[in-house]
Amino acid sequence: MSTIKYLLPEDRIPTAWYNIQADLPRPVPPTLHPGTGQPIGPDDLAPLFPMALIMQEVSAEQYIEIPAPVRDVYRQWRPTPLFRARRLEAMLDTPARIYYKYEGVSPAGSHKPNTAVAQAFYNKEEGITKLVTETGAGQWGSSLAMACAFFGMECKVFMVRVSYEQKPYRRGLIEAYGASVTPSPSPETNAGRAILAEHPDSTGSLGIAISEAVEVAATHADTKYSLGSVLNHVLLHQTVIGQEALEQFALADDYPDIVIACAGGGSNFAGLAFPFAGKKMRGEADTRIVAVEPAACPTLTRGQYAYDFGDTAHLTPMVKMHTLGSTFIPPSIHAGGLRYHGMAPLVSHLLDLGQIEATAVHQLDAFAAGLQFARAEGIIPAPESNHAVAQVIAEALRCKAEGVSQSIVFNLSGHGHFDMQAYMDYQAGKLQDYDYPAEEITMALAGLPGVG
Amino acid sequence: MSTIKYLLPEDRIPTAWYNIQADLPRPVPPTLHPGTGQPIGPDDLAPLFPMALIMQEVSAEQYIEIPAPVRDVYRQWRPTPLFRARRLEAMLDTPARIYYKYEGVSPAGSHKPNTAVAQAFYNKEEGITKLVTETGAGQWGSSLAMACAFFGMECKVFMVRVSYEQKPYRRGLIEAYGASVTPSPSPETNAGRAILAEHPDSTGSLGIAISEAVEVAATHADTKYSLGSVLNHVLLHQTVIGQEALEQFALADDYPDIVIACAGGGSNFAGLAFPFAGKKMRGEADTRIVAVEPAACPTLTRGQYAYDFGDTAHLTPMVKMHTLGSTFIPPSIHAGGLRYHGMAPLVSHLLDLGQIEATAVHQLDAFAAGLQFARAEGIIPAPESNHAVAQVIAEALRCKAEGVSQSIVFNLSGHGHFDMQAYMDYQAGKLQDYDYPAEEITMALAGLPGVG
Repeated sequence: MSTIKYLLPEDRIPTAWYNIQADLPRPVPPTLHPGTGQPIGPDDLAPLFPMALIMQEVSAEQYIEIPAPVRDVYRQWRPTPLFRARRLEAMLDTPARIYYKYEGVSPAGSHKPNTAVAQAFYNKEEGITKLVTETGAGQWGSSLAMACAFFGMECKVFMVRVSYEQKPYRRGLIEAYGASVTPSPSPETNAGRAILAEHPDSTGSLGIAISEAVEVAATHADTKYSLGSVLNHVLLHQTVIGQEALEQFALADDYPDIVIACAGGGSNFAGLAFPFAGKKMRGEADTRIVAVEPAACPTLTRGQYAYDFGDTAHLTPMVKMHTLGSTFIPPSIHAGGLRYHGMAPLVSHLLDLGQIEATAVHQLDAFAAGLQFARAEGIIPAPESNHAVAQVIAEALRCKAEGVSQSIVFNLSGHGHFDMQAYMDYQAGKLQDYDYPAEEITMALAGLPGVG
Repeated sequence: MSTIKYLLPEDRIPTAWYNIQADLPRPVPPTLHPGTGQPIGPDDLAPLFPMALIMQEVSAEQYIEIPAPVRDVYRQWRPTPLFRARRLEAMLDTPARIYYKYEGVSPAGSHKPNTAVAQAFYNKEEGITKLVTETGAGQWGSSLAMACAFFGMECKVFMVRVSYEQKPYRRGLIEAYGASVTPSPSPETNAGRAILAEHPDSTGSLGIAISEAVEVAATHADTKYSLGSVLNHVLLHQTVIGQEALEQFALADDYPDIVIACAGGGSNFAGLAFPFAGKKMRGEADTRIVAVEPAACPTLTRGQYAYDFGDTAHLTPMVKMHTLGSTFIPPSIHAGGLRYHGMAPLVSHLLDLGQIEATAVHQLDAFAAGLQFARAEGIIPAPESNHAVAQVIAEALRCKAEGVSQSIVFNLSGHGHFDMQAYMDYQAGKLQDYDYPAEEITMALAGLPGVG
């Protein structure tokens, strides 16, 4: 029984990113200035981002050309393989056809370099010499560090403290690429000092780390800020995943009935799903598209769709998104990349439009699914990706119960080689599920601007 | 500046392994029975290995067909990419053309699955339900565990204690695949108990772990032994690497002047080098072929070419090889896969024939080279592979000094995502070089059968 691989030749790397904003039945709500509450213009974002990325953020063009130097770097690992998981299908004894797009073949081991390389390139083009960012589990920080090494730029990473301490090895990778890593909250910024004053033992959160990184960028002229998810231009860069998958499904003479990806900030989800969602919105195909989030941080399934800040210190603009409140600090689940209080505005908008579904998975179910996948397919998924795997297995078993042969594809957004402690803890029975912390979330939501 | 990728379509996975024994100007010296000192026959090996592998061990056929179920599994990650390291060339400002064959794309992250899958298949074919093996850094153990999961077999791994303790994450991977892991020396075997009686704090060695695994296989009828390097059939299975590289060089319209790989037991070296060595011995091409070993365990460069045991307890047959003595326990360098007292008989024979060269590299130089490579090419190499990288950089700088443009290829045998502690220790200045422990080696060599 063989895992089938659908490879594209490298001249089939997409030449343009797909911009879902062109196909939306109504536009995504505007981004608001944190001070005035009015829609922001490009100049408001200029302290943080190079103009090329700001223009992508608001573009309505359906396709945006990928610069040749970015495609040159992509070429090292793209097009990534699309696999048909025949051994997993056999293990589940399901009539479903299970496919996975594998982004773990990038040098950093995840999908994050797709946008890291693009962001480093555009910043370099506009004369920026240093990028500052935040990272949770470290997938994003290591990817941006790598991209900065390629383009000869400096890189500073604020790393959520719980990951900094529990997952030193992605920190090691970031440092191996020559970047500097600071645990967040840190005494280096006003935002960090404020948190530490109130919570000296804070384990940190993406929201806090974003505040610190934004503050550093806003106060240093040679430094811009770089974000690994959430924003429109970041999701845009990830669409190479789904565009390749569309071509690979044509090779396979198949088309997915269900597209699945985990969702923290939304970038790997958008990367696979948006090209399929575009075809759906254009009436060219009908596909269920499912975002899977952790039950411990259930943004799409239990959050509120409202204007909120992207960070804890309220330095960022406000976006309309599904949110648990910008002061909510999620439990320390191992899927650090999914511990974010908010969600990409474009993903939230699609959910609001009824174009996609969302579901939540508990940590233990996610790891059980990941182990089953590893024994069938060999690849051990990142804990984030395990959430998608759990949903895929549930759908495949539903197909078996119903006796239907549906085609399912998911984004295997990264490998778990940096996350073995989590797997060891799971196998030793040391992990627990976290219930939806209703009270904390309610309190955080009560603080939403314009809410209650 | 772009890293160039030379990909083969999957129908170009080799259909047969290349057997270098067919092209040797004189045959490799025979394997001797540990009791009688006489050449062994197939039946002597039958308690340890399935007959198909024993026949491959002594075959003189130039090509041995790869069974379809093995090729089906290979198809998931093979053919692996051959890259031209253009960014590294630019960083070194060298006229050399540097290529690397990247085996880290396998699900286990190294070249080891090439033979693990084949060995699991042949054992399964002959009705074996359980395999036992040893592992150093864990690349081999995790690969065999994965292969056993694919073929529905049990797997037991004796892991060198220093790696078991210092590198728990490859152990975690082995366990994730469903195999059991025992630190070696262990109280489970006579061999282990004997070592522990003399050295209760023994950090172990591959030689000890082999003794334990062989003992378990020899005393259990349903269990066979599996070795991840050294033996002829293991090296044979790895030749898919070099055969693909030959085709990829044709695509690149180039041919290597120098072929480089690190050498511990010899399997990744043989995998890349043997097809090139075959062409060299057949007079079809002239190529320097360089095996790179750690200065702390300098088997080829400082050992004796003599009959010796493969293990510490002298349970294995004797083979003629470069050896530091079967009781030599190498210093605890981070390149655990290179900590072996001996060398594959075929690699030793080629060195004796003058067909290949050998050189030794210190640990600190190897890590410095690995970091330089990571910042140029994104991929962080396994500490073993860093030894090859160090030699490649030295050759590329020689080319620069001499003003010659040579073509260099090396085997990037695995990624270093499980080895970040070593990189962090290196960057923190905590690692040291180990001098050639002359006295210990001399004592171990003095114990060689038929020596002094």
